[in-house]
Amino acid sequence: MPRIPVAVLGATGYAGEGAVRILLGHPGFQLVHAGSDRLAGTPLGEAVPALAGESDLVLGEDTPAAIVKSGAKAVVLAKKSPEVTKVVPELLKKGMRLVDIGAEFRLRTPEGYAKWYKEEHACPDLLAKAVYGLSEWRPVEIAAAKVVGNPGCYATSMLLPLLPLAKAGLIYRTAAIVAIGYSGLSGAGKKFAESNNNLFYAVNENLHSYKAGSHQHTGEVDQELSLAAGNPLHCTFVPHLAPITRGIHTTITLTLGAGIGLEQVLDAWRSAYAGKRFVRVRATPKEVEVANVAGTNCIDFSAAVDGRTLIITSALDNLVKGASGQAIQNLNLMFGLPEEQGLLARGM
Amino acid sequence: MPRIPVAVLGATGYAGEGAVRILLGHPGFQLVHAGSDRLAGTPLGEAVPALAGESDLVLGEDTPAAIVKSGAKAVVLAKKSPEVTKVVPELLKKGMRLVDIGAEFRLRTPEGYAKWYKEEHACPDLLAKAVYGLSEWRPVEIAAAKVVGNPGCYATSMLLPLLPLAKAGLIYRTAAIVAIGYSGLSGAGKKFAESNNNLFYAVNENLHSYKAGSHQHTGEVDQELSLAAGNPLHCTFVPHLAPITRGIHTTITLTLGAGIGLEQVLDAWRSAYAGKRFVRVRATPKEVEVANVAGTNCIDFSAAVDGRTLIITSALDNLVKGASGQAIQNLNLMFGLPEEQGLLARGM
Amino acid sequence: MPRIPVAVLGATGYAGEGAVRILLGHPGFQLVHAGSDRLAGTPLGEAVPALAGESDLVLGEDTPAAIVKSGAKAVVLAKKSPEVTKVVPELLKKGMRLVDIGAEFRLRTPEGYAKWYKEEHACPDLLAKAVYGLSEWRPVEIAAAKVVGNPGCYATSMLLPLLPLAKAGLIYRTAAIVAIGYSGLSGAGKKFAESNNNLFYAVNENLHSYKAGSHQHTGEVDQELSLAAGNPLHCTFVPHLAPITRGIHTTITLTLGAGIGLEQVLDAWRSAYAGKRFVRVRATPKEVEVANVAGTNCIDFSAAVDGRTLIITSALDNLVKGASGQAIQNLNLMFGLPEEQGLLARGM
Amino acid sequence: MPRIPVAVLGATGYAGEGAVRILLGHPGFQLVHAGSDRLAGTPLGEAVPALAGESDLVLGEDTPAAIVKSGAKAVVLAKKSPEVTKVVPELLKKGMRLVDIGAEFRLRTPEGYAKWYKEEHACPDLLAKAVYGLSEWRPVEIAAAKVVGNPGCYATSMLLPLLPLAKAGLIYRTAAIVAIGYSGLSGAGKKFAESNNNLFYAVNENLHSYKAGSHQHTGEVDQELSLAAGNPLHCTFVPHLAPITRGIHTTITLTLGAGIGLEQVLDAWRSAYAGKRFVRVRATPKEVEVANVAGTNCIDFSAAVDGRTLIITSALDNLVKGASGQAIQNLNLMFGLPEEQGLLARGM
Repeated sequence: MPRIPVAVLGATGYAGEGAVRILLGHPGFQLVHAGSDRLAGTPLGEAVPALAGESDLVLGEDTPAAIVKSGAKAVVLAKKSPEVTKVVPELLKKGMRLVDIGAEFRLRTPEGYAKWYKEEHACPDLLAKAVYGLSEWRPVEIAAAKVVGNPGCYATSMLLPLLPLAKAGLIYRTAAIVAIGYSGLSGAGKKFAESNNNLFYAVNENLHSYKAGSHQHTGEVDQELSLAAGNPLHCTFVPHLAPITRGIHTTITLTLGAGIGLEQVLDAWRSAYAGKRFVRVRATPKEVEVANVAGTNCIDFSAAVDGRTLIITSALDNLVKGASGQAIQNLNLMFGLPEEQGLLARGM
Repeated sequence: MPRIPVAVLGATGYAGEGAVRILLGHPGFQLVHAGSDRLAGTPLGEAVPALAGESDLVLGEDTPAAIVKSGAKAVVLAKKSPEVTKVVPELLKKGMRLVDIGAEFRLRTPEGYAKWYKEEHACPDLLAKAVYGLSEWRPVEIAAAKVVGNPGCYATSMLLPLLPLAKAGLIYRTAAIVAIGYSGLSGAGKKFAESNNNLFYAVNENLHSYKAGSHQHTGEVDQELSLAAGNPLHCTFVPHLAPITRGIHTTITLTLGAGIGLEQVLDAWRSAYAGKRFVRVRATPKEVEVANVAGTNCIDFSAAVDGRTLIITSALDNLVKGASGQAIQNLNLMFGLPEEQGLLARGM
Repeated sequence: MPRIPVAVLGATGYAGEGAVRILLGHPGFQLVHAGSDRLAGTPLGEAVPALAGESDLVLGEDTPAAIVKSGAKAVVLAKKSPEVTKVVPELLKKGMRLVDIGAEFRLRTPEGYAKWYKEEHACPDLLAKAVYGLSEWRPVEIAAAKVVGNPGCYATSMLLPLLPLAKAGLIYRTAAIVAIGYSGLSGAGKKFAESNNNLFYAVNENLHSYKAGSHQHTGEVDQELSLAAGNPLHCTFVPHLAPITRGIHTTITLTLGAGIGLEQVLDAWRSAYAGKRFVRVRATPKEVEVANVAGTNCIDFSAAVDGRTLIITSALDNLVKGASGQAIQNLNLMFGLPEEQGLLARGM
Repeated sequence: MPRIPVAVLGATGYAGEGAVRILLGHPGFQLVHAGSDRLAGTPLGEAVPALAGESDLVLGEDTPAAIVKSGAKAVVLAKKSPEVTKVVPELLKKGMRLVDIGAEFRLRTPEGYAKWYKEEHACPDLLAKAVYGLSEWRPVEIAAAKVVGNPGCYATSMLLPLLPLAKAGLIYRTAAIVAIGYSGLSGAGKKFAESNNNLFYAVNENLHSYKAGSHQHTGEVDQELSLAAGNPLHCTFVPHLAPITRGIHTTITLTLGAGIGLEQVLDAWRSAYAGKRFVRVRATPKEVEVANVAGTNCIDFSAAVDGRTLIITSALDNLVKGASGQAIQNLNLMFGLPEEQGLLARGM
């Protein structure tokens, strides 16, 4: 069977490079275009020295013309608005199917987008058609989608454990749901950003929060939680930076409904994720470690109770399950390939 | 004025070494005994190479006889039960005044101790006389105390921001109070500990929780919060390890009473800590950074609201304000010295 | 073609776990025995939580009986003497072929072994038959070997760049050859070791040397250099610890023979390693980065000159090219499989 | 005695902040001006949050007028050319005495400066009058100097151990002297620099060299070594980056003269540095650890021999002994204060 040709836009950022790394070893897809505005014309193995010797591809320009010329049938978008929204309508017209690792197609309404991203969406009519690409939660809709909005890294770490509980009605609605996330620095991107202060001196031997209660992933989390629960739910989210390169650890607390205990939580998880290779429920919260998921497409989580307070810990690799890995998992679903294909590699 | 002679027991552990470091540069105290069961007979500057050249002291044995012989009037205890409780009654009989950096004298009742430490207390009659040494909260009682139980590192990071709110009745009592703490590895001690898994390979590029909902500092936090509020309050606490040497960052969420807002929180802090040099209220949660308190006796905290949920971030150096620094601050109070004396040093 | 059955002894140490990780994804080998003295009886996925869900194997005992029963035709030894030397003769008698990741079969003479390891070798008669397993340097002998002594991690980082220069006579013999190596902590092993002081607190924010001029890898480096040069050569080696988990960076300086320049060095490398996928000569010393080889079986190196002083920088992953990766590369050679098989994976 | 008024130019860079930190606690000097081109007008405690509460100073402009107005008698320059050379002549005219932490006044000749810094010096006539400020090596000249060129951080780590050996004629002149240095990231400055690639993602879990054989500190090292030896000596220097914030570890190898052994080396050090508090000769190379000097003005070094090859390891804090600490030590010498004053603080 011939491999399906795929393009990656923004191939030298963290998420784009991640997609390239996976696709180079994927038996079902062929990387036919890897684009970079800044480095077009440079061989991939030179732009990303760790990949030297793995591919002859030369970085291209991320123009619709170049992408069409590459023959790609699927496109992974790893850029920000408006670079993404500018090319999306044209690529869709050519029949391509898209997974956006950025944040353009996660929220279902233009109002939601404007609230959390502080600007108008450039293709508001596409929002209702896009599918929120939480692979294990909505595989059938993803399989049929033209545009998939890949979930945020933090959002994935919250939603996979929370959604089955919301759907099963285990959460006491009027009490606060709180998520405290700690992310490694790859979440802040490969370029210097004053706002993230991602210099070594600012990060090493340091811990601090940012955007307490106002991080943009809150929008998609509330949207999906409320849909699953059938009534409005809100999660207070406080992200933090930790001096590691990869990985997110999120600790979630909520109040259980009267009479609900740990066993019902575990049952809800078991029935939601039976047979799902990338979701691993660990025996205790302590066993949920970033080191066990780094470099994999797995999310690990577990729970304990303190009275009626449920404590959930959750860990994933923000660059894999939280970005490129889930994007390729979605591509697998969209093109009828085995969900796990190309995603079982891990470091030697 | 002659300096007051002080002994440090357990001088080569992290907390003991911390007390030694501060005392060597303190104009009001003189270190007359530094003890170590393992290294008695070794010069201090050899046991702690970073202190080479600073003192001629030779490590002694931590026996009552040796301590009495040193002439110490004050003793800093940096060991665990039963090594501490074995010598305490005898030292008290000699008129010495004690600060225990360990956990023996934090809880007011033998039942509380047994619940959180899973064993009977060795000198239960002393518990009611000991003073909980949260320096800024109870300076008058500390000044008069014979035995001070120095607060836990995590507990200090929670109680200093929470107590004024509990006392002012700002907390909605029936909703959960949750504290998510991340600590550096010095909190796990200097010796190899299977339980802490404090090897570099286990910690680096990793994040994980431990003792979710069951950490022993919960006991002293609940005790002090309830005393301040005048009714029972409970804090669900989940500690985590982060790959840094020093520092704790704690993120606390709670529900505010109806009609209470951020301004009342800030007012409560201002009035509780006016003129307190080591308590710094920062403008926003993001500005609360471990890097700004590391190596100092300061605690920084700040707050934001998300609806009725109050988000507090708090940071301190677990070895200074969370251990030896607060211990010497308590000694200053006990001996009528300026509260800040010897504690304003910081790295060059 | 049926897969060749392989056993790994000492499967839960760093090197053994590395071999297990590679073999689980290797199309030519089947892991039939993974042994651990401490954890025999525990499922592999429980002993190594990162591998949960990948294999049903239960850890076995590393006795000859258990290994024979597993049907293994090849054995990777990832233990120390005498645990290794005790089983080797019996396994050889059964016709198995062995790769020892430890240090038992690197030196060709019992005298050499005794000098560098401070004890008598337990099977001195095997030393002359064992082959030094530097894969790219001696592929033909390795292919025919019964016992391969896998090179040391540091030694690999020195020998691959140095051997072609020694062989081509480019090194000025009477001047010092000096190698300064920095290794990550996985080189110190997974267990607590006082001698390595591998606790996080001792390593983080620290750098220091150890065994300056007396590290045991010097023995195998001098042996191989002298063989290649046809006359005695000695390398002064000073290893150091750096606060990273994986990777070695070695900086080598030597004096070039009169009239020899950088071009001859590059020529020697090109002709020695043409077509060798895992050896990458980088354009400048600065481009030799641990980050580019971590998680791969590659060694990167480069050179510059300062007068007649040649400066070589070299980097590899001590757990892969410096241990398990090279071990499996040797197994590939020994069983006629493509040299790179199973070794092209890298993190996603 | 009134304190001597001091100005710090470039007070918010790493070196300038370091000088400010020391001066705020120095009993002999008073900080009267702290300048910053970018942040003039901002309170110091806001620009450097760790110093909140320590000083009422507001950052000023680094113009000669502002500096003169401050009443400063001494100026610490922590900026680069031409910002430094522009103000120096005017400040000298006003009778101020200067210590330049930058690189403008280390080399004695305009030719040397042009060779290593690739540009013409702006005040070439001052070079011959400036004194190379290696405090322990040239205290008398420093005491009399108007302009002191503070040594480079790497250069200090090489010269303090090497100079007594060069002067005593212990070094075999015709063999290579090689220094391999590893520095923490504070050496790369507080701002993003493409050339240093000081982002966390680029540094964490990584090691690599830069400017192999061509680093600019080579110029001052060769100059001082040759002066001490009385004949030309050259040191090949290869700097590297290590993922730590502070500290330099340098490993130096050289060939000893015929018949010279370790004892003569130790004798040379003892006689050169008797009574020098900040120079600590450790018993073995392994005991030379960055962790023991971080946050102090000390340099630790030691040596071992391998045949005629001498191996020296050396460690210092690049921000203290390698920059601001040595600068204030030089100010102490220049103004007749005790050499150690204000420099004995270390972290609590």
